[in-house]
Amino acid sequence: MELVSADDIRAAGARLQGAVVRTPLTAGPPGGPAFLVKPESLQPTGAFKLRGATNAVALLNPVQRASGVITHSSGNHGQALAYAAARLGVPCTVVVPDNAPKVKVDRMRDRGARVVLVPPAERAAVAEEISRAELLALVPPFDDPAVIAGQGTVGLEILEQSPEVTTVVVPVGGGGLASGVATAAWTVHPRRVRVIGVEPELAADAAESLDRGRRVPWEPERTHRTMADGVRVCLSDLTFEHLRRRLDGIVTVTEDEIARAVAHLALGARVVAEPSGALAAAAVLAGRVPTVRGRPEATVAVVSGGNVDPDLFSRLLAEHR
Amino acid sequence: MELVSADDIRAAGARLQGAVVRTPLTAGPPGGPAFLVKPESLQPTGAFKLRGATNAVALLNPVQRASGVITHSSGNHGQALAYAAARLGVPCTVVVPDNAPKVKVDRMRDRGARVVLVPPAERAAVAEEISRAELLALVPPFDDPAVIAGQGTVGLEILEQSPEVTTVVVPVGGGGLASGVATAAWTVHPRRVRVIGVEPELAADAAESLDRGRRVPWEPERTHRTMADGVRVCLSDLTFEHLRRRLDGIVTVTEDEIARAVAHLALGARVVAEPSGALAAAAVLAGRVPTVRGRPEATVAVVSGGNVDPDLFSRLLAEHR
Repeated sequence: MELVSADDIRAAGARLQGAVVRTPLTAGPPGGPAFLVKPESLQPTGAFKLRGATNAVALLNPVQRASGVITHSSGNHGQALAYAAARLGVPCTVVVPDNAPKVKVDRMRDRGARVVLVPPAERAAVAEEISRAELLALVPPFDDPAVIAGQGTVGLEILEQSPEVTTVVVPVGGGGLASGVATAAWTVHPRRVRVIGVEPELAADAAESLDRGRRVPWEPERTHRTMADGVRVCLSDLTFEHLRRRLDGIVTVTEDEIARAVAHLALGARVVAEPSGALAAAAVLAGRVPTVRGRPEATVAVVSGGNVDPDLFSRLLAEHR
Repeated sequence: MELVSADDIRAAGARLQGAVVRTPLTAGPPGGPAFLVKPESLQPTGAFKLRGATNAVALLNPVQRASGVITHSSGNHGQALAYAAARLGVPCTVVVPDNAPKVKVDRMRDRGARVVLVPPAERAAVAEEISRAELLALVPPFDDPAVIAGQGTVGLEILEQSPEVTTVVVPVGGGGLASGVATAAWTVHPRRVRVIGVEPELAADAAESLDRGRRVPWEPERTHRTMADGVRVCLSDLTFEHLRRRLDGIVTVTEDEIARAVAHLALGARVVAEPSGALAAAAVLAGRVPTVRGRPEATVAVVSGGNVDPDLFSRLLAEHR
């Protein structure tokens, strides 16, 4: 299996110039371990997913561009693909479960995407069917080298922005972000920078898979127990292989640690994170990421997204300030 | 009266390299007029004030550095000076009203500042007295050319980051930020870029002053009616003169518009703003800033700070989502 290379990520970085925000490194909340935050929540669609989607759309050939792209996602990847496609005038279709929040559907439509509502269980099948029937290029949320290379630009930027960084902490859902960032660190600074993945205890398929040395998918009814709805998916063969070879470690956090991190990021670091987006900060704040040579300030936690449900957000703020 | 020049701001920009965050331009909330946000809330102390304080401390002579600096502020300037001084090993004293929130006092002490608690009405006098007795350099929050030049780097960065920008919108309290940004725009692109100031209706001394052509301070009991606690102060002669000559216009917003902007920035743009920090976005969202040649996307609203009271923040989120 061919893995993504540092050159793929550098090329993605060049394609992403001007299309995504070069997010800064900012100070984590005071009063706990010192660390830096990379707020990908500041991307126009509120999450790092815009990087992978933008790279994938930029890599389409002219025929594919004219026909269009398709994906199935009610979440950040669907928003990202709609945005990335609109930017280059590429037609975009998103197959969305019919129980998705109306606001998310509206935002995709606002960006010019065609939205196809289907029963939740049918969305992957329907997306494949439309893709074949209409010759649309399928852009999956993580199981794709172009998407992984795009997400890897998060890691490349961190290495450029902070020559002192020793540890980068990232959330793990499907594993696209972790695969890309681990590849960047592993190929650019193989010994200097560690990349640590973080999962909710309640959706820890990647931790179990890496521990056993083989992919162990968890059933949706298990992973759906976590409030971190962006990471309820499991690794693919491609992301598993990247993580098995390149990730330095993986840790888990509790729901309470995630909730506290959402509140502390908002009130102490002025960063709005959704629960999935707060996983890396949660692990650092809870002391689950061992520091290197006593240099905790050399740790960067990627805040991967900020599209938090308003009710949940104000509840977490009230409970954990 | 000598005003700050573009060269002063460029020199400040060089001094601030690596000491403050180069905040990105990010997308404003969807569903209203399109504009960009510059989230100064991401500075390590949560507000743009760190720029002016850092520039002022960097400009001290060796004797002043050894003796130390002093200011009176329970708010963002006090935090900023404590941080900027600590970074260069300069002793820092902050005179704080004894009714200030404990968390703010603790943060200054955590940064190594000496905190002198006094009755609110005495703080300016006590700061001057200590400054004279101990030969400490007084670094005022806005009535100071070095501070204004530091705040002006916000404007310089915007001009560098977006060659398309036609309008920059900034909050006005003491007028340091507006003076610096207006100077940057006025001297670098005199015709291309307009700078518009924003005040709460309930603390509109600058609007009245500019309208009458002379400084008209408002009594504290009037300005204290606004929830935007960071802009309850009035212009000084120095900032009035900068704004009179260089600001392109000033508008006011209601308390309700401020409240909505805090919520929409958090939920729609993933940016945590305190009420004072949300003034510029409030004016754009409420349609109070006329657009140039129908190009609303060429407007940047500076979110000046994000140190919002937790209770107020969760209440505004619950009321205005």
